[in-house]
Amino acid sequence: MVKVDLNSDIGESFGAYKLGLDEEVLKHVTSANIACGFHAGDFMTMRKTVTEAAKNNVGIGAHPGFPDLQGFGRREMKITAEEVTNLVIYQVGALAAYAKAVDRPLQHVKAHGSLYNQASKDPVLAEAIAAGIKAAAPQAILMGLAGSAMITAGKKVGLKVAQEVFADRAYNADGTLVSRALPGSMIHDPEIAVPRVVRMVTEGKVTTIDGQDIDICADSICVHGDNPEAIAFVRRIRSALEEAGVQIVPLAQVVS
Amino acid sequence: MVKVDLNSDIGESFGAYKLGLDEEVLKHVTSANIACGFHAGDFMTMRKTVTEAAKNNVGIGAHPGFPDLQGFGRREMKITAEEVTNLVIYQVGALAAYAKAVDRPLQHVKAHGSLYNQASKDPVLAEAIAAGIKAAAPQAILMGLAGSAMITAGKKVGLKVAQEVFADRAYNADGTLVSRALPGSMIHDPEIAVPRVVRMVTEGKVTTIDGQDIDICADSICVHGDNPEAIAFVRRIRSALEEAGVQIVPLAQVVS
Amino acid sequence: MVKVDLNSDIGESFGAYKLGLDEEVLKHVTSANIACGFHAGDFMTMRKTVTEAAKNNVGIGAHPGFPDLQGFGRREMKITAEEVTNLVIYQVGALAAYAKAVDRPLQHVKAHGSLYNQASKDPVLAEAIAAGIKAAAPQAILMGLAGSAMITAGKKVGLKVAQEVFADRAYNADGTLVSRALPGSMIHDPEIAVPRVVRMVTEGKVTTIDGQDIDICADSICVHGDNPEAIAFVRRIRSALEEAGVQIVPLAQVVS
Amino acid sequence: MVKVDLNSDIGESFGAYKLGLDEEVLKHVTSANIACGFHAGDFMTMRKTVTEAAKNNVGIGAHPGFPDLQGFGRREMKITAEEVTNLVIYQVGALAAYAKAVDRPLQHVKAHGSLYNQASKDPVLAEAIAAGIKAAAPQAILMGLAGSAMITAGKKVGLKVAQEVFADRAYNADGTLVSRALPGSMIHDPEIAVPRVVRMVTEGKVTTIDGQDIDICADSICVHGDNPEAIAFVRRIRSALEEAGVQIVPLAQVVS
Repeated sequence: MVKVDLNSDIGESFGAYKLGLDEEVLKHVTSANIACGFHAGDFMTMRKTVTEAAKNNVGIGAHPGFPDLQGFGRREMKITAEEVTNLVIYQVGALAAYAKAVDRPLQHVKAHGSLYNQASKDPVLAEAIAAGIKAAAPQAILMGLAGSAMITAGKKVGLKVAQEVFADRAYNADGTLVSRALPGSMIHDPEIAVPRVVRMVTEGKVTTIDGQDIDICADSICVHGDNPEAIAFVRRIRSALEEAGVQIVPLAQVVS
Repeated sequence: MVKVDLNSDIGESFGAYKLGLDEEVLKHVTSANIACGFHAGDFMTMRKTVTEAAKNNVGIGAHPGFPDLQGFGRREMKITAEEVTNLVIYQVGALAAYAKAVDRPLQHVKAHGSLYNQASKDPVLAEAIAAGIKAAAPQAILMGLAGSAMITAGKKVGLKVAQEVFADRAYNADGTLVSRALPGSMIHDPEIAVPRVVRMVTEGKVTTIDGQDIDICADSICVHGDNPEAIAFVRRIRSALEEAGVQIVPLAQVVS
Repeated sequence: MVKVDLNSDIGESFGAYKLGLDEEVLKHVTSANIACGFHAGDFMTMRKTVTEAAKNNVGIGAHPGFPDLQGFGRREMKITAEEVTNLVIYQVGALAAYAKAVDRPLQHVKAHGSLYNQASKDPVLAEAIAAGIKAAAPQAILMGLAGSAMITAGKKVGLKVAQEVFADRAYNADGTLVSRALPGSMIHDPEIAVPRVVRMVTEGKVTTIDGQDIDICADSICVHGDNPEAIAFVRRIRSALEEAGVQIVPLAQVVS
Repeated sequence: MVKVDLNSDIGESFGAYKLGLDEEVLKHVTSANIACGFHAGDFMTMRKTVTEAAKNNVGIGAHPGFPDLQGFGRREMKITAEEVTNLVIYQVGALAAYAKAVDRPLQHVKAHGSLYNQASKDPVLAEAIAAGIKAAAPQAILMGLAGSAMITAGKKVGLKVAQEVFADRAYNADGTLVSRALPGSMIHDPEIAVPRVVRMVTEGKVTTIDGQDIDICADSICVHGDNPEAIAFVRRIRSALEEAGVQIVPLAQVVS
């Protein structure tokens, strides 16, 4: 039976600032990428979020990002491989401690924002992330953009890897995401997005922005929980996948 | 044979800012309290410091502090028990990940600055620290001021505890430290300080500021590595202890 | 004709984090206390907020707070007078530069959160705030709790001062606010709160929590814009004041 | 008579962290670029530094940088023009308030680190900096790399501009600095560096790394105060310039 994981970025609140419908989205996803205090999240939010994820039997993942709270980790930053490895160790260690506090394993690690984007294309940064995970949590799964440098890097250091696809993004012919700056990069219409996701999971194919069919491996689907529409979209994807006979399970049950 | 540990706060550099003669002091102490990025330290400094400590076979400890880099964690802050537990988990987890990266255990945890001072006198904060250590690193030793609320709290949650004494501080009759704001609080003269430390370790006694002898338990002695004089002082303490037949070993070999 | 100012804390967003219905509340108040980047706000939010305030002809005020973004400046902190003066200068200077950018004067300065609360009762901190304002913006009005140490301090250094009252808070017999931790400290019912505010403004009297009438000087009324109910409350206060013949004008037209 | 300014970056300490021999270098330079709390400096350091500069009759300048304390503002960052304008306004405003506190004008503004480097080559960022200065301190001088986009941008918005040269850096044929990553980029030998600086000031010429003579305008020479050798170097430059009949004066007396 085909299995897939649904993941969402959560735990992005900070102090008095609330972001995301975490409690809602946790009912629908199977894995959570939890902010670790650099681009978002803090020591209170992390404890609460990990506890909530555990209660919902959602796989707990670290979501390390750049040290840029004001920019939410989305600014490109010129950073060395050594810095990347060490900031990944730091954030993974911190998040893993909260998982330990609720007696759950750290299931996976997914880089956030610009760190994710830069490392998708840059093998040096990708290997730096993989080295950080290997050092801090060698049993955790590295989740990265399907077919990207991160997947290669994770395998290279001997980590379990999970390939992630996006329900709402257009793909280039080489499997990379179409830049958000370009027209057609976002797929907002659920009538298009939902069957597209089902096809990625069940057939391992996606149609690129220029009309070709390419192979794609979908271990996990990235969804969002920012607003009620996003939650509704997650529910539609779940239903459509289940109707197509796909089993939706935490990442650790997809890759092993 | 009497055993004692020598500990020092290290890893307090941050980015371009260098603080402390870490490489030097690591040659002389047996345990290191390493800053975890809140009051001092960063993801690069922590990696480097943990690596250096491991090379010198110095016991690796986390040194969590208040989230106050500009105040170096020395400002008193009104903070809830829940906040304290969670900031301890965060920082202990981060530091433990670097220890794991060099294949060493996290030996101990010692609170820093105002967190240490406030928790020495406040059982609620002391238990909050102990709860954080218990959650993130239950095998680690809680190091606290000899005879303080922290020692009681550590025992209460089932942690191993280590009682810390200060070579350069005067004591009150109740075993607390004389406030630095008061005259006579600091003991700068090594001719007085060194035999005083030896007596604390070998006899379990110290003379208070008002001339009484009180019992004190010295599992570990806090020393400094800020400047060449401090390093020279550490060497004198080591020599005097060794001459008195005391064995100087990492904390894990003192308490068990 | 009796005049009063309505003030609200705004510009508290930070990076990706949005807080407060600023655009809405700016339509109803006459003065804005704008966060300056320490407890809330950032260099983008400040520019946007000052620009919006200017468009609405709302008096522009700096709202300096403690350097504690994660605690939103609400944690009590032991801080020296010199530190307070210098953090006020910093934040007032930064905010004044945005006011200059839109060719408006800095109308006033109001301390935020714990800085406000601590300085209301502590003449040393109150004078430290006043010294900071005097140094950075000597023409600006110091807004402080009516009858508090801040008012005394502002007068002492020769600043214009404005006495602030709260529509939703109970008062002690000495004119201080009843601690939020105590029952009855908050007045949520508009049927009680609104006529109470009108009486403070028109008669200079308020009934304390123990039933006495005390004198109070109301140059400005603090209102909130956190949610639609708060906005509705502001509108009710405005209407009731206008019906009572009170003129609602920016602070600079109330005190001079 | 030929005039030139000697400038140095100072006020880079932060909290417990001390950096630079500020008191020493202030005796030898005529203008100071003072860190504003983003890449270095804090509200205490800024007050102290501005006060020291004023005592030494050194021209007070703001030295705004990227919001990256851990990276000391030296990491390249992808940042929008609007962000740059607003972070310049913030930092210039803050520093100007300390200048006002000691009754001195803000003489100039010089961007720091990566912001300086990126804006030297990028007219959009250069104009964003100029716009920020124009908004916050229209009377201040924009100091930028001689012949760079920053000089053009400053003139374009109607600011006074000052062209800065480096005593210890090699130049490309187009007047840009040779990247530090390349061999020969740094000129460490004072026997070469000192006459080179004198020639830049007195003849307006410099020999590039590939042996050509190019024109260069030297309103100000950047020197360092990090260590005793750097201080000695500044003294040599001063002496050599004075022997060559050059008058060393604050920037405001060079450009007007």
